Amino acid sequence: MKFLHTADWHIGRKLNGFYLLEEQRDALEKLMDVAEEEQVDAIVIAGDVFDRAVPPVEAVQLFNQILKRMNREKQFPVLMISGNHDSATRLATGSSWYKLSDLHLHTNIAQSLTPVVIGDTQFFLLPYFEPFEVRHYFQDETIRTVDEAMTRLVDAMAAVFEPDMQHVLVSHFFAAGSERSDSETKVEVGGLNAIPVDKLTLFDYVALGHLHSRTALHHPSVKYSGSLLKYSLSERNQTKGVWLVTLSEAGLETRFREITPLRDVVLLEGSFDQLTDAAFYQHIDRDDYIAVSLTDKAVIPNVMQHLRDIYPRIIGLERTRGNERARRLRTQQDITRLSPLALMSDYFKEVTGEPVSAAQKRWLKQTVQGIQREE
Amino acid sequence: MKFLHTADWHIGRKLNGFYLLEEQRDALEKLMDVAEEEQVDAIVIAGDVFDRAVPPVEAVQLFNQILKRMNREKQFPVLMISGNHDSATRLATGSSWYKLSDLHLHTNIAQSLTPVVIGDTQFFLLPYFEPFEVRHYFQDETIRTVDEAMTRLVDAMAAVFEPDMQHVLVSHFFAAGSERSDSETKVEVGGLNAIPVDKLTLFDYVALGHLHSRTALHHPSVKYSGSLLKYSLSERNQTKGVWLVTLSEAGLETRFREITPLRDVVLLEGSFDQLTDAAFYQHIDRDDYIAVSLTDKAVIPNVMQHLRDIYPRIIGLERTRGNERARRLRTQQDITRLSPLALMSDYFKEVTGEPVSAAQKRWLKQTVQGIQREE
Repeated sequence: MKFLHTADWHIGRKLNGFYLLEEQRDALEKLMDVAEEEQVDAIVIAGDVFDRAVPPVEAVQLFNQILKRMNREKQFPVLMISGNHDSATRLATGSSWYKLSDLHLHTNIAQSLTPVVIGDTQFFLLPYFEPFEVRHYFQDETIRTVDEAMTRLVDAMAAVFEPDMQHVLVSHFFAAGSERSDSETKVEVGGLNAIPVDKLTLFDYVALGHLHSRTALHHPSVKYSGSLLKYSLSERNQTKGVWLVTLSEAGLETRFREITPLRDVVLLEGSFDQLTDAAFYQHIDRDDYIAVSLTDKAVIPNVMQHLRDIYPRIIGLERTRGNERARRLRTQQDITRLSPLALMSDYFKEVTGEPVSAAQKRWLKQTVQGIQREE
Repeated sequence: MKFLHTADWHIGRKLNGFYLLEEQRDALEKLMDVAEEEQVDAIVIAGDVFDRAVPPVEAVQLFNQILKRMNREKQFPVLMISGNHDSATRLATGSSWYKLSDLHLHTNIAQSLTPVVIGDTQFFLLPYFEPFEVRHYFQDETIRTVDEAMTRLVDAMAAVFEPDMQHVLVSHFFAAGSERSDSETKVEVGGLNAIPVDKLTLFDYVALGHLHSRTALHHPSVKYSGSLLKYSLSERNQTKGVWLVTLSEAGLETRFREITPLRDVVLLEGSFDQLTDAAFYQHIDRDDYIAVSLTDKAVIPNVMQHLRDIYPRIIGLERTRGNERARRLRTQQDITRLSPLALMSDYFKEVTGEPVSAAQKRWLKQTVQGIQREE
């Protein structure tokens, strides 16, 4: 059994106002090329195929086209679940017919307990779930946490393991000990909704979706594929792609194949003069999604417009904090104790890295007094 | 060939604020019972399965359940098109797999020209279309109107007619000479978008959707099925149901089978005292969707609340116009020529059937003058 493991396509997602459909189409076509080159026996998609419950019509169209090509034209068996971003009910449309050509899409608990057999492998397709659904399914009021729910589900799956077969779990959740990116929906608080990985070693491989970094979890047989593309600036240094998973008598073998995006997500840091100098930007792929961190302290009129003229896909602009040491975490109490003047001086120093000058202090004082008089 | 012809389910529609999902589920189950009793060879659904492009999730669920039961469980071949209320792209999800079990859903022009063969019959499934799509498909700039588009399409269909077979067109448009109800979307202006029926007599039967009355068109072989339920008060006297169409060597036979709704749409007319008298309403099915036409002229405080206490599904309230003769169609010019006072007096008479009294006239005059002074 050799399969491709992908997840978190988030079709229809925007990055700071830009629709990424062109990049998504490109990456999905490259994914299909990998599947063909590697001659995989199946494609596993571990949830969040769409970015939201009601995706824009262009996103639906792209998804339908890719799925058709994958399964109806290229004849790959597909194993798929809904993630927390998908509407399980809406995504389920067509699923009673999908399975007629070995496209298995599971969107509820009950389905997850009947394995799909492809070759010598049992695949358990467990969609994103909430503990109450498991509590309700098993009619067991003692199931309160996601951890308890998972224990119960894994027990039920293990009960139908065929001993001569390989066992793969496909699911979509936050595994305890994983690292996050900025672009995942943070539904978990304080680790309460994290699932311990030791529950999952019963399976020969666990194909996860949810976290956007393929290295979010360091485990030989429990892996996130990571997202299809970089969906936030914080993901800019991540490598995106798919896992190729081989299960044989020799054991488990996993190999990552990178998918190069049509347009990258990058951060440029420098002064306004540097970044707007042709000698600099001629070496930059200005077609990329570019966030800019300016080292300047002075006010630059129409700065965004000037930058956009050079970098059409600008996704953010911030001032570089010259002196990080000046930043302090203040409690609410600290802040309420400071005078407006001290607070402003502090903020100025934090942002610019320099203290307020005597002239600035004078002007600030007058302004604050002016406001207080009006009150 | 014996098939059931239905259309205009409008799943997810509201009637004056009331969701009709329960009534729609009930009617669709009855429709399935008819299909089973009559042992039809196929079920034809001529568009507008949903009420809007993005239906509520409960509507999607109902549709998916019904379609699954119809085709995957009861094994009926299904022939289906998108209507003007459906999003062709969203509805098309799953259609590449649907056909694996004889569920044929066509949502674009190109598909309509390849007939689906069931038994001895060629079905041409032509979804709702705009002339520009046909112009674009045939790369022919001379195609401007829906009539020209239809001529071109029918010619292309006739070119692939198998002479030994029966030929059925399934489509969704406004046929010239049809009568309307209130609840259809009025996209046609002045008959420009109407399709002459003589174009369609090439087919042994034309199964239409769009208009909500099964008697909107009087033609032996070109028929609207009408909508699944009464979707406006103006449809209250219509009989809803499905056509059973038999094509054989003996020719065409059509028979209508009524589907009784879970709750009816009715109009009650009478005085407030009559309608709120238990002796009266004990004979009324107060579970129905009820519009009330009051014959009273006096103001009745909290009238809607009083009526709703008795008729929980009240969908409208109006005052009966006692003297219809008083109503005149005025042209825009007439109206602009009248003084505000004359206009108000006229309106009062139209609504109440009685002229304005001297005291009312005095009060009206003062009010109008007051407003004019303010201006």
